[in-house]
Amino acid sequence: MSRFAPRPQPPYYAVIFTSQRTEGDHEYGATADRMVELAAQQPGYLGVESTRDASGLGITVSYWRSLDDIAAWRRVLEHTAARNRGRAQWYSHYELRIAKVERAYGWDRADGTRPGDGGA
Amino acid sequence: MSRFAPRPQPPYYAVIFTSQRTEGDHEYGATADRMVELAAQQPGYLGVESTRDASGLGITVSYWRSLDDIAAWRRVLEHTAARNRGRAQWYSHYELRIAKVERAYGWDRADGTRPGDGGA
Repeated sequence: MSRFAPRPQPPYYAVIFTSQRTEGDHEYGATADRMVELAAQQPGYLGVESTRDASGLGITVSYWRSLDDIAAWRRVLEHTAARNRGRAQWYSHYELRIAKVERAYGWDRADGTRPGDGGA
Repeated sequence: MSRFAPRPQPPYYAVIFTSQRTEGDHEYGATADRMVELAAQQPGYLGVESTRDASGLGITVSYWRSLDDIAAWRRVLEHTAARNRGRAQWYSHYELRIAKVERAYGWDRADGTRPGDGGA
């Protein structure tokens, strides 16, 4: 499965979540997997990209059709519980930004898609 | 030095660059460090957050005051050369999105900043 999100036509929204993990798992891995699964079932979900280095610094960007879809996902009880647990156990610091994607393009070595087709 | 970007008042812009590295360094590390240094000298630069996992999947988000500042940074010759080399050697796939940050907030375990103060 690709770790890149699809490339829908802008505009759409990005939730950029940058976080530093604490030591130890404390069920973080299983919950993170579950949140990815649950997010993908929500209305307006467009995709996610996520990575974390060995020092525990991670960036997850999820993509959504609208701000209303993001707000609705925030209200899903299992997600609210996970956020609370994040502050209680999993993270030492995080930054969260909500941004409107205005331009998007990509490039792949295999198909040689030209960058810049989508703007910028 | 913090690996989190500062938290200026929105609106501002994010360049979300998700990439898969090829095998081997090929001077990637030194060039990446130089690009971070060079970006920080550009007008309108607000900060950067970057991480990459052991499989080579990385996300770098740089923050800028305006679209014009982003366009000017793209035209810096050393940056253009690095992008060309990225396609020639360093990446097998990337996605690039330009997005307008509308809301931003953060949380830190030490100071207990409440999330949600900035909106969302």
